[in-house]
Amino acid sequence: MTVIGSGNWGTTVAKLVAESTREHLDVFEEDVQMWVYEEKVTLPKDSPHYDAAVGDEPQNLTAIINKYHENVKYLPKIALPGNVIANPSLQDAVKDATVLIFNFPHEFINNILKQMKGHILPYARGISCIKGVTVTDDNIELICEHIGDALGIYCGALSGANIATEIANEEWCETTIAYNTPPCDLRATNGASNGTSNGDHKDSRGQISKTKLVPLPHDYPPLDHEEFYKLFSRPYFTVSMVSDVVGVSLGGALKNIVAIACGFVEGHGWNMTAKTAVMRRGMLEIIAFAREFFPETIQEKTLWEESAGWGDMIVSCTAARNWRYSKMAVERGVSVQEIERTELNGQKLQGISTSREVSSFLRTRGLEDHYPLFKAVELILDQNIKVDDIPKLFRK
Amino acid sequence: MTVIGSGNWGTTVAKLVAESTREHLDVFEEDVQMWVYEEKVTLPKDSPHYDAAVGDEPQNLTAIINKYHENVKYLPKIALPGNVIANPSLQDAVKDATVLIFNFPHEFINNILKQMKGHILPYARGISCIKGVTVTDDNIELICEHIGDALGIYCGALSGANIATEIANEEWCETTIAYNTPPCDLRATNGASNGTSNGDHKDSRGQISKTKLVPLPHDYPPLDHEEFYKLFSRPYFTVSMVSDVVGVSLGGALKNIVAIACGFVEGHGWNMTAKTAVMRRGMLEIIAFAREFFPETIQEKTLWEESAGWGDMIVSCTAARNWRYSKMAVERGVSVQEIERTELNGQKLQGISTSREVSSFLRTRGLEDHYPLFKAVELILDQNIKVDDIPKLFRK
Repeated sequence: MTVIGSGNWGTTVAKLVAESTREHLDVFEEDVQMWVYEEKVTLPKDSPHYDAAVGDEPQNLTAIINKYHENVKYLPKIALPGNVIANPSLQDAVKDATVLIFNFPHEFINNILKQMKGHILPYARGISCIKGVTVTDDNIELICEHIGDALGIYCGALSGANIATEIANEEWCETTIAYNTPPCDLRATNGASNGTSNGDHKDSRGQISKTKLVPLPHDYPPLDHEEFYKLFSRPYFTVSMVSDVVGVSLGGALKNIVAIACGFVEGHGWNMTAKTAVMRRGMLEIIAFAREFFPETIQEKTLWEESAGWGDMIVSCTAARNWRYSKMAVERGVSVQEIERTELNGQKLQGISTSREVSSFLRTRGLEDHYPLFKAVELILDQNIKVDDIPKLFRK
Repeated sequence: MTVIGSGNWGTTVAKLVAESTREHLDVFEEDVQMWVYEEKVTLPKDSPHYDAAVGDEPQNLTAIINKYHENVKYLPKIALPGNVIANPSLQDAVKDATVLIFNFPHEFINNILKQMKGHILPYARGISCIKGVTVTDDNIELICEHIGDALGIYCGALSGANIATEIANEEWCETTIAYNTPPCDLRATNGASNGTSNGDHKDSRGQISKTKLVPLPHDYPPLDHEEFYKLFSRPYFTVSMVSDVVGVSLGGALKNIVAIACGFVEGHGWNMTAKTAVMRRGMLEIIAFAREFFPETIQEKTLWEESAGWGDMIVSCTAARNWRYSKMAVERGVSVQEIERTELNGQKLQGISTSREVSSFLRTRGLEDHYPLFKAVELILDQNIKVDDIPKLFRK
């Protein structure tokens, strides 16, 4: 069991799966490896972990985590279970893991996958906590599928109305895990025949994937919805298992465009009712998009019913970054790009790049007018229309 | 065209339909009657309408509205179109109206219907802005259907993520109108045959209604989705027409139970992610309830897709009374009933009575455990469980 990444969300997930492995020693090994990009940290004098013998000497973050069971840099003041083992070597951290949990910023993905390739168990299985899709003019690729194909394994996706620090503090919330168990992993008790165990599985378009899987050894515990439910669910973290990786991935990516629109509307001085209208229109466009480009595989109820659908939409549009900073931009009368420069230290808002990519993808197909809210966000980003113009887009 | 009721929501609706009738004189008569429960109002000296000649003499509210085109008592500072005509006589206000719009507090309904009976056009049609359902241990009755049956007419329902003062200020929002056009009103251009024009129509259970309708005269303009869309939609008020009165009515009533639960959770100190989980569970229970008791007629997508579904849920759980006061109760460590007494001047929170009625209805059928969130709200109201116990209800 390895969590790849140790930011606030990665460390939070390591905490909760480590609590679960201890509870289910019949299914999982106790220790959870957490790969940490090593860095030097100096503990301040007022830290409870300050050691006069060490003084101001910078220490390795992994050493601090393993000694004090706290990620002082990215998840301070949260006690981690002793079975979270910080490991600065990516290859060492992943080499024995049957379950790989991906949880780091999107921009590092290809570099990390390249380092992992050939150093993992051939029958490893993944769960991506990195939300979303990669959209180019030619293609939409689910991030979980990109991971799976790059490593030659199957990889599902976790997404929901989740804010890392709230979960770390054990405030209750829900999440959705999409895992379309490969036929070669289905056990006889699940009613599967052996005829499907040649490593074929269907991709997100419903076609046989080019990636042939190495089946999970038969003497291993199974890895299906029941096990992932056990691994991720906690008293404060309620898990719902689905098989629809498309709905979970599209919801996780496209809601960021809607959150930008909600920030515009609220920054403009409109209230909850207007914002709710934007959310609703946004959800209708996400579902239309899913139907149009993944007609064989989308299960719409994922978006209507699941935490990864409406749940994540609501949280993203009322309590998260894309919404907050686009609202700030309108309130200050500057562009969102300007806010990125002045407030975000060069960090980027995911919703802006997703808006650009999706708009360009739709334009390439002459479909931009079928998605008036997505279109409006790009037009407002480029200052070609005003927030006041949004309601007109929805008149008959 | 008559709006029955002149509170802040009633006056707001009178404003918007009066704007629309002026825009569509080919379809509607210009004047909109608004029935006002007459009362005396004294204008303060700093009112822009203060008249030294009248001084502190109390004046009739209807006279003030008709003179200054402002409902100074219930919707102050909002200019009404001159074609909103305040009328203190209910029977006079409704006698010539083909369209009756019901918009007053739920508790006055039977008294008002009794006064109207026999004084309306036999072919009048209604739209109820009074949300919801009446639940007894024996029955669930839609309020719009109750109105229709009491008056011997057909009555649809308007509901959505709407806050009256925001709409009065022309901030953009959306609404849903459910109107299941009676067969006798369908025109040949709609593809209807004359064989169905005997006044029969289906009730909310899908059975032939006991109420026989008098068809709209054939030389009258039609009254169908197109006309109601024209009547209610404004540049700042986007209307969606559906035929599912069940979904709209159940959403409008049961979301109040969920809003109470959201107040509990937020008052307890949990954040948006926990609240979103409650909303999602609540929506799943509303839909299960609709499937269980209106299996022939419910169109689930009304609740997933429409402003009267998820939209209204979000606004009710983040910006409205039931949520606000149940949150306050938990924050202050007192019962919601106590808050009703001390903060609401004896007014009642709809969500509490709906919770009681629905819980009792479900218990009568041995079904309360199928609706864990609805059950939890009643248990918390009676202080039989704590807010902390909510997540347990949803573990496998």
